[in-house]
Amino acid sequence: MHVDTLWSNVHLMTLDGEGLGVLRDAVLAATDGRIVHVGPAGSDAHLQPTTRIDGEGRWMSPGLIDCHTHLVYAGNRANEFQQRLQGVSYAEIARAGGGIVSTVRATRAASPEQLAHESRPRLLAMRAEGVTTIEIKSGYGLTLQDERKQLQVARALGEECRVNVVPTFLGAHAVPPGREAQEYTDEVCEVMIPAIAAEGLAEAVDIFCENIAFSPAQARQVFEAARAHGLAIKIHAEQLSNQHGAELAAGFGALSADHIEHLDDAGIAAMAAAGTVAVLLPGAFYFTRDTTLPPIAALRSAGVPLALATDSNPGTSPLTSPLLAMNMGATLFRLTVDECIAGFTREAARALGHGERIGRLAVGMDCDLAIWDIDAPADLVYRIGFNPLHARVVRGQPDLPASWSNT
Amino acid sequence: MHVDTLWSNVHLMTLDGEGLGVLRDAVLAATDGRIVHVGPAGSDAHLQPTTRIDGEGRWMSPGLIDCHTHLVYAGNRANEFQQRLQGVSYAEIARAGGGIVSTVRATRAASPEQLAHESRPRLLAMRAEGVTTIEIKSGYGLTLQDERKQLQVARALGEECRVNVVPTFLGAHAVPPGREAQEYTDEVCEVMIPAIAAEGLAEAVDIFCENIAFSPAQARQVFEAARAHGLAIKIHAEQLSNQHGAELAAGFGALSADHIEHLDDAGIAAMAAAGTVAVLLPGAFYFTRDTTLPPIAALRSAGVPLALATDSNPGTSPLTSPLLAMNMGATLFRLTVDECIAGFTREAARALGHGERIGRLAVGMDCDLAIWDIDAPADLVYRIGFNPLHARVVRGQPDLPASWSNT
Ligand SMILES: [Zn+2]
Ligand SMILES: [Zn+2]
Repeated sequence: MHVDTLWSNVHLMTLDGEGLGVLRDAVLAATDGRIVHVGPAGSDAHLQPTTRIDGEGRWMSPGLIDCHTHLVYAGNRANEFQQRLQGVSYAEIARAGGGIVSTVRATRAASPEQLAHESRPRLLAMRAEGVTTIEIKSGYGLTLQDERKQLQVARALGEECRVNVVPTFLGAHAVPPGREAQEYTDEVCEVMIPAIAAEGLAEAVDIFCENIAFSPAQARQVFEAARAHGLAIKIHAEQLSNQHGAELAAGFGALSADHIEHLDDAGIAAMAAAGTVAVLLPGAFYFTRDTTLPPIAALRSAGVPLALATDSNPGTSPLTSPLLAMNMGATLFRLTVDECIAGFTREAARALGHGERIGRLAVGMDCDLAIWDIDAPADLVYRIGFNPLHARVVRGQPDLPASWSNT
Repeated sequence: MHVDTLWSNVHLMTLDGEGLGVLRDAVLAATDGRIVHVGPAGSDAHLQPTTRIDGEGRWMSPGLIDCHTHLVYAGNRANEFQQRLQGVSYAEIARAGGGIVSTVRATRAASPEQLAHESRPRLLAMRAEGVTTIEIKSGYGLTLQDERKQLQVARALGEECRVNVVPTFLGAHAVPPGREAQEYTDEVCEVMIPAIAAEGLAEAVDIFCENIAFSPAQARQVFEAARAHGLAIKIHAEQLSNQHGAELAAGFGALSADHIEHLDDAGIAAMAAAGTVAVLLPGAFYFTRDTTLPPIAALRSAGVPLALATDSNPGTSPLTSPLLAMNMGATLFRLTVDECIAGFTREAARALGHGERIGRLAVGMDCDLAIWDIDAPADLVYRIGFNPLHARVVRGQPDLPASWSNT
């Protein structure tokens, strides 16, 4: 059988089935961007590849999937970080026009070119660690026109950098300055969601359900609009308090409930019943010096799928390293090595509704790979601030860090 | 006046004087590897450079200095990390031959070539973030021959990778398996320190003074031997308990006392009086999930100089990112942005006894530089898992990340 490319002499983390699905001394073949063969060394006798690649004993995993980011925004909040270290309170910063409002202002003011220019280095940092798929949320425009701009820039950057972008509409991220929450929610549901859906600009709708943002009743309204327009559902839930948002979202068949530090047993049961993925965000936990851990043990025993993500954003997680998010997942949340790696591959794919296409090395899946210079899978999680990526492969096409100029 | 190289159109963090010593729109010139001019744009009219480099508005700082690492070792303890996440106790791991003993075993067994092979990627990761000087301790050999091997490999790697290595003898890191503490301390003092000093293999002597390692009386003995042989003094002090080691070391005029989570007021006063630098190691604090913060406010008000370092080591801080250590210094220890940057430049140089040669941009200093693609100095500390290094300069010679193949 003819195949395009055959990789041999590799150890695989297939993520197929439970755990990492390790297959040592393996071969993997792809044709037309899809995986057509996975097996032990020697199982490729019937294959005639156009290109053979010797993996030289390296490890291969699915390309990493970051399933929760706010990567596309303009402006820089390092000064705010600096002020807070000098003792300036959050309230004082907000009064001076800081906080999320400053990101909204900068994002609205930026041209698409400027927005891409400021966001590109963040996407390249992700790519340099083997990311092949990234979810990017809107939510710093808060007008139809500016939300659209964020989503269009996200898509264009993905094409330019050869990273598969999954766009999410997060119009209900914050109540825009000068607006009233219910009136803005009505606009999100009646104007923005229909337009975003009609233009095919997002696959899912997300909302920040919290005391300081939108109420559970408003979340229900947004989910009904999303469902009516055929968009999937996600939620920022239970980060600062228990609003029962995850339970509500699970009732709508949400793909994921994210953060969930304050999730209760009823929320866990609802997520388990609906197959809603728990997306854990240790970068925000670390950066905001949170002390309430998500209920990992209870999620685990209820069988809720656990994904991990960077939550890359300027206010609470200016993090562009999936590998570091894995280390934080282990160190801060006590996730196992297998859970951390699955959280950025198989379970992340599930949190995006693409578990049948990406996140595992199996016949029929997209051939999106990350190839690593490591001794064992645990190295990806154990080391801190170290990037052992040897190469990425996107839809069967290798690209090497050595060929990138990404600084 | 003829000069070798002139950088113009740069913003400087000179670190000269207090704080960052920012000089915007500046020029800097070097000849024979030394800085010969620093000033505002236009102050270079009298200079005739052989090479002109346009900084294109980038920021320039002294090359980063990591003043506390255990970077040269063999073996991999990712498996131990994995086991602990699966609930295996430290005692069980130690009984199975894990912990520091496994690193000692692997380091002793490794040839110099193998030791360099395993350590090189860690040094290259440091270099990729702008490190121009790194302290590297021995302490995994625990025989004269194997300690010597570690120090020789450290020096050779530094030359190969163009990173200035400052070697420290840490024979008193742990009591070797099968030995008795006092008898081994005697060998360190009577055999090893004299030999290491005679061979010029280390600039300083360090000791791990703790319940589980060496006593204050043994530290005194080691410091007396170090002094007798003309070596500077450093100490791992007060990490797990208050042994009054920092106070003892300060009495010997120690360059630095490192960790110091459990330091008391008497120790702070002694360090302030002696000018002993406090080397803070947030990577180990993070990785071991420590909850006792070093007494930062009291150190600050006593005027103790504060340095920051990675403590790169396989057991408690597998960290090879100075930038991440800065973020951890701010996030976990609430150091200011200026303290984090000074902690990896001016104060780190002081902790190594090289404050008159490196760590500041001033006439007469070595021309070791890091050039950054950032909007402002705070970006170096605020971002997590992001490397904006544009170029390094070592003794006046630029080298660009683009020319490296370090994965
Ligand atoms: Zn988020
Ligand atoms: Zn140490």
